[in-house]
Amino acid sequence: MRNIKLELSYDGTDFHGWQRQPDHRTVQQVLEEAIEQLTGVCPATNASGRTDAGVHALGQVVHFYTASRHPPEVFVKALNAMLPDDVRIRGAWEMPQSFHATLDARAKLYRYVVDNHPFADPFQRRYSYHVHQQLDVAAMHRAAQSLRGRHDFHSFETQWPNRTSSVRTITHIAVNRMNDFVWIDVEADGFLYNMVRSISGTILLVGKGRWPEERVAEALKAEDRREAGPTAPPQGLFLVRVQY
Amino acid sequence: MRNIKLELSYDGTDFHGWQRQPDHRTVQQVLEEAIEQLTGVCPATNASGRTDAGVHALGQVVHFYTASRHPPEVFVKALNAMLPDDVRIRGAWEMPQSFHATLDARAKLYRYVVDNHPFADPFQRRYSYHVHQQLDVAAMHRAAQSLRGRHDFHSFETQWPNRTSSVRTITHIAVNRMNDFVWIDVEADGFLYNMVRSISGTILLVGKGRWPEERVAEALKAEDRREAGPTAPPQGLFLVRVQY
Repeated sequence: MRNIKLELSYDGTDFHGWQRQPDHRTVQQVLEEAIEQLTGVCPATNASGRTDAGVHALGQVVHFYTASRHPPEVFVKALNAMLPDDVRIRGAWEMPQSFHATLDARAKLYRYVVDNHPFADPFQRRYSYHVHQQLDVAAMHRAAQSLRGRHDFHSFETQWPNRTSSVRTITHIAVNRMNDFVWIDVEADGFLYNMVRSISGTILLVGKGRWPEERVAEALKAEDRREAGPTAPPQGLFLVRVQY
Repeated sequence: MRNIKLELSYDGTDFHGWQRQPDHRTVQQVLEEAIEQLTGVCPATNASGRTDAGVHALGQVVHFYTASRHPPEVFVKALNAMLPDDVRIRGAWEMPQSFHATLDARAKLYRYVVDNHPFADPFQRRYSYHVHQQLDVAAMHRAAQSLRGRHDFHSFETQWPNRTSSVRTITHIAVNRMNDFVWIDVEADGFLYNMVRSISGTILLVGKGRWPEERVAEALKAEDRREAGPTAPPQGLFLVRVQY
């Protein structure tokens, strides 16, 4: 069996997230159906991680085993011809047998996009969270730096069964303005459930002037979800890239 | 009665175009409903021109008469609070009584957007027409120049009742590449039904190498819709701005 790695983009708007679910359209389902159409066998795909309903991906990574002899570039062309137009394969590679998209991911970069124009851009409403109040981006960036490094991020996760540890390492966190849009970039060795969305919801409180900057560090130390800010909505979140 | 001019953007995806129709959601309908909610009276709005189902606007211009005493900036804020999130008011101005958004429009700029990456961008599929074959943009630009000036554009209109003349003046036409996207910009003193979409469909034949450049000028001279290329699909078309 060959081990094929795919990199894919998807518009999460019309998906109930990555993971297969009965009665819901998911990215994993449409991808596995396309692979089955091409190879004749329904594969078991593994992604670098789940994305939630409404969350987008620019560079999600998936792998699967197949007996198919198609070269990788044929997977790209043929799967793109079969997939619905809200998912695109950006590349395919044959990997060593041992490669695993979930277990081998060393780091992931997520971007949370805020539309900070006084009136929401109709063309960006599916791809950003609108905050009409002018945000203090410098204060958000400074406050976010307290989350860098290795910490227990229990204050920034939504409870999820089977989770053994909430310790993760954020290697990069930055808040930048691009005209009317504010980008919150977070790179870490792994992410807890709703981690970027609760970090974003929290530092947005700083940006609006409702929280002093120091309170983000205090919320982290509390290791209590109730001490952090709200979970920002899914449509602003993008999985940008995965590093192996 | 005061004469109010509005500039608005809309994502045309979920609209059956500008003009009110029974049983269909249109931009005129949602705008007039919002104005009625604000002023208590359903106004008769006039736009610079109709846009078709699926066509977008960055800067459509509309005017209406009202007895309301709200200053223009209140129209912007209040209407944006009432409108669905696929329409945004970008500005409002009180105009002389004589101003008419349709009759006084001196020029309009439309942009047709082509996604020319080998695989369609999932995030741009509602806002572009995907052509996988690499386009010769320089040839498209040269061929398009034959359409500049005052001509009978009968070859580039879909028949529409009550049309008296097909003579229009194109003041600017340009084809440019921006990374994977190709923009076809057309500015004219007025547009016939489906004019930009049939011009785009025609010069795309040149870009694909299926037509020699000279054939665009020949199609224009024929004054026969059958001599020009197909009508490109609506989701690539944007009304960019209207000049008065």
